[in-house]
Amino acid sequence: MFRFDSDYLEGAHPLIIKKLAETNLEQTIGYGCDPHCERATKLIKEACKAPESDVHFLVGGTQTNTTVISAVLRPHQGVICAETGHINVHESGAIEATGHKVLALPSSDGKLTAENIKNCYESHWNDPNHEHMVQPAMVYISFPTEKGTLYSKSELSEIFYVCRECGMILYIDGARLGYGLAADGCDLSLPDIAALCDAFYIGGTKVGALFGEALVICNNSLKKDFRYFIKQKGGLLAKGRLLGIQFETLFEDGLYNEISVHAINSAKRIKKIFEKHGCRFLSESETNQQFPILKNSEIEKLLSEFSFETWCEINEDESAVRFCSSWATTDESLDALEKAVDNL
Amino acid sequence: MFRFDSDYLEGAHPLIIKKLAETNLEQTIGYGCDPHCERATKLIKEACKAPESDVHFLVGGTQTNTTVISAVLRPHQGVICAETGHINVHESGAIEATGHKVLALPSSDGKLTAENIKNCYESHWNDPNHEHMVQPAMVYISFPTEKGTLYSKSELSEIFYVCRECGMILYIDGARLGYGLAADGCDLSLPDIAALCDAFYIGGTKVGALFGEALVICNNSLKKDFRYFIKQKGGLLAKGRLLGIQFETLFEDGLYNEISVHAINSAKRIKKIFEKHGCRFLSESETNQQFPILKNSEIEKLLSEFSFETWCEINEDESAVRFCSSWATTDESLDALEKAVDNL
Amino acid sequence: MFRFDSDYLEGAHPLIIKKLAETNLEQTIGYGCDPHCERATKLIKEACKAPESDVHFLVGGTQTNTTVISAVLRPHQGVICAETGHINVHESGAIEATGHKVLALPSSDGKLTAENIKNCYESHWNDPNHEHMVQPAMVYISFPTEKGTLYSKSELSEIFYVCRECGMILYIDGARLGYGLAADGCDLSLPDIAALCDAFYIGGTKVGALFGEALVICNNSLKKDFRYFIKQKGGLLAKGRLLGIQFETLFEDGLYNEISVHAINSAKRIKKIFEKHGCRFLSESETNQQFPILKNSEIEKLLSEFSFETWCEINEDESAVRFCSSWATTDESLDALEKAVDNL
Amino acid sequence: MFRFDSDYLEGAHPLIIKKLAETNLEQTIGYGCDPHCERATKLIKEACKAPESDVHFLVGGTQTNTTVISAVLRPHQGVICAETGHINVHESGAIEATGHKVLALPSSDGKLTAENIKNCYESHWNDPNHEHMVQPAMVYISFPTEKGTLYSKSELSEIFYVCRECGMILYIDGARLGYGLAADGCDLSLPDIAALCDAFYIGGTKVGALFGEALVICNNSLKKDFRYFIKQKGGLLAKGRLLGIQFETLFEDGLYNEISVHAINSAKRIKKIFEKHGCRFLSESETNQQFPILKNSEIEKLLSEFSFETWCEINEDESAVRFCSSWATTDESLDALEKAVDNL
Repeated sequence: MFRFDSDYLEGAHPLIIKKLAETNLEQTIGYGCDPHCERATKLIKEACKAPESDVHFLVGGTQTNTTVISAVLRPHQGVICAETGHINVHESGAIEATGHKVLALPSSDGKLTAENIKNCYESHWNDPNHEHMVQPAMVYISFPTEKGTLYSKSELSEIFYVCRECGMILYIDGARLGYGLAADGCDLSLPDIAALCDAFYIGGTKVGALFGEALVICNNSLKKDFRYFIKQKGGLLAKGRLLGIQFETLFEDGLYNEISVHAINSAKRIKKIFEKHGCRFLSESETNQQFPILKNSEIEKLLSEFSFETWCEINEDESAVRFCSSWATTDESLDALEKAVDNL
Repeated sequence: MFRFDSDYLEGAHPLIIKKLAETNLEQTIGYGCDPHCERATKLIKEACKAPESDVHFLVGGTQTNTTVISAVLRPHQGVICAETGHINVHESGAIEATGHKVLALPSSDGKLTAENIKNCYESHWNDPNHEHMVQPAMVYISFPTEKGTLYSKSELSEIFYVCRECGMILYIDGARLGYGLAADGCDLSLPDIAALCDAFYIGGTKVGALFGEALVICNNSLKKDFRYFIKQKGGLLAKGRLLGIQFETLFEDGLYNEISVHAINSAKRIKKIFEKHGCRFLSESETNQQFPILKNSEIEKLLSEFSFETWCEINEDESAVRFCSSWATTDESLDALEKAVDNL
Repeated sequence: MFRFDSDYLEGAHPLIIKKLAETNLEQTIGYGCDPHCERATKLIKEACKAPESDVHFLVGGTQTNTTVISAVLRPHQGVICAETGHINVHESGAIEATGHKVLALPSSDGKLTAENIKNCYESHWNDPNHEHMVQPAMVYISFPTEKGTLYSKSELSEIFYVCRECGMILYIDGARLGYGLAADGCDLSLPDIAALCDAFYIGGTKVGALFGEALVICNNSLKKDFRYFIKQKGGLLAKGRLLGIQFETLFEDGLYNEISVHAINSAKRIKKIFEKHGCRFLSESETNQQFPILKNSEIEKLLSEFSFETWCEINEDESAVRFCSSWATTDESLDALEKAVDNL
Repeated sequence: MFRFDSDYLEGAHPLIIKKLAETNLEQTIGYGCDPHCERATKLIKEACKAPESDVHFLVGGTQTNTTVISAVLRPHQGVICAETGHINVHESGAIEATGHKVLALPSSDGKLTAENIKNCYESHWNDPNHEHMVQPAMVYISFPTEKGTLYSKSELSEIFYVCRECGMILYIDGARLGYGLAADGCDLSLPDIAALCDAFYIGGTKVGALFGEALVICNNSLKKDFRYFIKQKGGLLAKGRLLGIQFETLFEDGLYNEISVHAINSAKRIKKIFEKHGCRFLSESETNQQFPILKNSEIEKLLSEFSFETWCEINEDESAVRFCSSWATTDESLDALEKAVDNL
């Protein structure tokens, strides 16, 4: 059985395991104040060309999103996101549990536009009853989105401009950031991302690490007391160096980018395997998630050899499915997939 | 520099690193539904003689405490704990952040007694204004406590009896559970713990793991929908198998107990190193935390070679300090400490 | 200037003012434990034919909704409501502030159907990732709705049946309950309402009182400790008797119904005033809120003499407006309105 | 039976009832934007000599405290108060329900001192683990306190100075403010109060109104978006004018002060009634709450004719009780009390 159901199926890139083993008996102080976190911070700031930013390491994505969003918002404020946004649908109400409404906007491709953000903001302030409503104060986007799509540099710039204009904070969920930046159609670099938002995180869990996300806070006004928030939300790892060691490894010699490219190449091959037979796709994804539309009978056959997610029903006979590649995808598994699809 | 400032200074027991490396490229599904978590669950249930219990793996202690306590309490209810309880002083208000008051009771040795729990409960219900007050509904104790002290079997039984009688839930924070069970004065076993509370956790972070706590829910009424709570509080690790692998290793061949005994033996030696010179101690700790009282000048000298925490001021000239041993404490470090103390 | 912009423009029905004056210097104990609250409770239970219910008096609607919903839900659960539901749009995120997601369903007429509730429930439980999503556990409907529409007895019965079947709690916001029950098309009585939900409130603020809502808890499992919740959410009025006195007056000799009928008759006249000239309406409201669609130029003219709310844009030239009648609407104001509309 | 158990036993001062009756059929817009609220605001600003302040009207004390405190604090921050503070013991955990710890300091007379506030602040910031603890950011005091005691002008000035120095917000709960300002020993005026804190409220519920508290925000940085907070916490009364009308009446011709003086004179007489017989008192109260210490047998006898609260046990034979006077206390009731005490 070859698995394509997610991008967190394996452990970590072997270099990370090696580094964890080598440093295992070092004694360091806890909670992210050790030399490994310090060095990882330095490398990330360099990679982002953001020397003034603050970098924090957290364990997982839901935790990172919840910590940032609840730190930014005041009690009467909410966060705008696409209907399909992870915080709106797949975090068990973590944002609401901290007291804030998620203001979900319709979106067909998983993306928000500067225009619909502006409209949401204006429709709040133009409503004479706005004090009876949740005030939009922050925008959450994912790069890439949950549908595998990407923002272009001009789209992101416009969104950031609107946020600045409206006094709203822009936060980017980068769970799969590496896979977005390595995609063919991407015209954004890591420094661009850092320059075009108030805070974002560089996903480790899905991009080579055992676990861990590196939060980069670009906006000075969000930096104060941030470690309190991390501690309160349960994200301050006692042996914080584990996060430092992983991101040190990922950002030492371009490893993060290198393994992202591998995942994208694997995804391109997945795309071709299905395109060869005229298959349609749910979205125009250039990243590591591919959503081919298959007949239900074909899905059933493939499931005997491969694991993948059935994403949504298209009609009575067809459904969209999701195949994920990752830093760890093997040629062997892709060969097997190609053979199986050819035989359908 | 030898470090004694905490019990989370190193990585993990080498067998855990080995197992992580061996399993690294296995493909498993996420969120704790993999075979390693399954096996670890089985081993823990056996070790606890609690076949009917539910076992969940979470990343850290603050997260585990917050998840359990907020899952148990209704909005108007609070949790009783000792003034020195970790949730009361060292979790940045994580419990309050979920909406609940911590009802702190005075305690000189870090322990609660059945009697003061009962009094707290009765003083609530006997107050004609109790509807204007936070209702005590849960009791939080640590085993061992933050002061290194232990509950005896009869003390814990009485507390559990009072909780049952009053309809309150008893929850045990076992961040250092192994070190408590391995202590000389301890007359409790793991199955005793499981039989004498509603839920508890077996600490991994401080006892041999890289990170991770195994929550054991003994009371049926607390089991329902628990994975939602873990997800919402950010504790559902994507690569859940990392927790499974670690606890599998710790509970495979008695490793958890074995390494706990090592820490206790090291702590006994620390105790002797100071006792030899007539030193007093802040508390009667038989566990891995020792609190000798030293002259401030002595503390300063020792700090040039060793790291340890200054715990509290005793008088103008003296302070209590904390030396922690752990599964990783080396003879070399203890020899050095002995020599330094002899030379004071 | 005659005002039609809401149903809380005046003070209270004169009999209430009279009763407040008469009882003013009585000494009673506080927090709703006085003889007036007792008597009002008795009268309401009789009117509802719900002798086993619990009745609580709260100050306002947002407070009542928040108190009930946060008392019912556990941390991972959310409340289903129509997109237009008051808790979703006009309570400044009060529900989310207690930690819970509002699960808003599309609705063109402000109503939910048993079918869309069932679908929402099933789509949660059929999703393999449901533990990563907010669990629907409660249904909020308004009677009448924010659009002035009403549920029929069979519609409400079906909704309640689905809720029972799915183990979800049904709660009815009755801010304008009197005006719903008095409407021509209504085939539900107060005892029907009490029999077909778990909890509901009888609105006083908009139906003759200075302020105050009477919460009726029909489901035994929701009764326990309820006064703690009211106190915690700031709803336990010190001089609780003020609420008792008002509801005593409203339910003494059928006053609540009588004044509701007056409001409905006034609304019918408003309807006719506009229908006479072929005016369309936004919704089929038979209650005290009427939503005629007018030309923008007509709206402007009317606003010089009358106050009313502009509800929503229909097209470039037309908008829907809202005219509210109430227990206090005068013939004089209706005559003036008729004249002005005739002159448009 | 004459009641002395609280200061909210009767309705409102007759002038308020009169004004409510007179204005009853006026039509005004809702939510506190009407001319009565406007006028009440003007009168209060004048009385406080605080033309730049913001005034908001809320229904009750718990609600006001919760709204202010949750509006001020960020998620990791807590509010310092005396152990006996109302928010710590008698609001059913309302503050914690909004996510914040109440940092209770020991106090024998219900008061905080500048010194213990400073110590609390410093002990936080001097602790190397302060990021693991709740950050003190606000100070809550009551004037008068729950024990009837008062701050002198110099004490309050010192507290405010320390708060400013430490960047903490000072908030005064003035549920019984009138009774404090009218007390013989008080050297503070309303303008002094307004000048020596960041926000405070002028209690109406206990001082002549049916209900209602007037929040005065003196510190500019706390003003923004405040009406959202009030709405979200359920405190934005639909018929807001009811609050406006009451405070208009109370502040029109010095009525608030006049009725406070009446209550203080009544309290002095209560004091004398007990002092005459050599009775001791629990606290040095010069306000409307008196705490004589009586034999339990005496208490029992008095309870047959009077209602009052048994406050706390002093020893096996004696308890402290609480007698409250108010604007409504009658000479008749005081004569009866005197006679009864003389006969003990």
